[in-house]
Amino acid sequence: MKSFKLLILSIFLLSLNGYSQEKMSNYETSKKEITDMMLKQAADWSNGDIEAFMKGYIKSDSLKFIGRNGITYGWKNTLENYKKGYPSKDHTGTLTFKLLEFDQLADTVFLVIGEFHLKRTVGDADGMFSIILKRIDGEWKIIADHSS
Amino acid sequence: MKSFKLLILSIFLLSLNGYSQEKMSNYETSKKEITDMMLKQAADWSNGDIEAFMKGYIKSDSLKFIGRNGITYGWKNTLENYKKGYPSKDHTGTLTFKLLEFDQLADTVFLVIGEFHLKRTVGDADGMFSIILKRIDGEWKIIADHSS
Repeated sequence: MKSFKLLILSIFLLSLNGYSQEKMSNYETSKKEITDMMLKQAADWSNGDIEAFMKGYIKSDSLKFIGRNGITYGWKNTLENYKKGYPSKDHTGTLTFKLLEFDQLADTVFLVIGEFHLKRTVGDADGMFSIILKRIDGEWKIIADHSS
Repeated sequence: MKSFKLLILSIFLLSLNGYSQEKMSNYETSKKEITDMMLKQAADWSNGDIEAFMKGYIKSDSLKFIGRNGITYGWKNTLENYKKGYPSKDHTGTLTFKLLEFDQLADTVFLVIGEFHLKRTVGDADGMFSIILKRIDGEWKIIADHSS
């Protein structure tokens, strides 16, 4: 009887362990997927390919881009703003991100906080960003971006 | 038999309607609760009571406050920064929020985007904010604030 109880306890503890590993790996997997997506974004931007960079954003009118002067609604307007602000490869320069925080807000929703650094001949530019990402059809997409 | 099928269909449609109303009211209730909390914050701030204003933030080291110069971790450091930046009632002035977007990211998680306006004798100050709120023990608390 004693060894039976021990068996039940062991199975219980093993299942708990499996559960926490699965939880952990969901967070870690998501973090890696998001990091990979953003590394690709930085590479595309640094190649002067803003359209490819924009694949990281949800292609929807619901996208929100917040800057200190206000809010831009929608994927198309966000793309147009980027094109206006960064008209040539001298302006896009070389982009690197420093990813500081990955907060899982829900199963398929993350808040990521970081720094952006633009190395450019026309003058470097740096700032902070906080983005909300959602996993949609197996891909992480930015649904809101606040850059300052 | 025909009227029986109709009855089943009616019950199904009524239950769908009830479901969507419950969903709607969860969103609308949350929106109202968050709005009330922020109106209280604005009133407390405008009374020069930064400690009372800070009740809107999660009282935890996990709080993140993002500005264009970087990230501040924790409730205490955020309070200290506010006190340093707004040393007198002339500096706190009168605060109003314009709440532009309420995005429900999960059952108890919201993204709220808005403008802040400070009316002051030492010079007005305006900007944008995006905050993540979480409902904890029946109260909405800001867990991350990006102001620019």
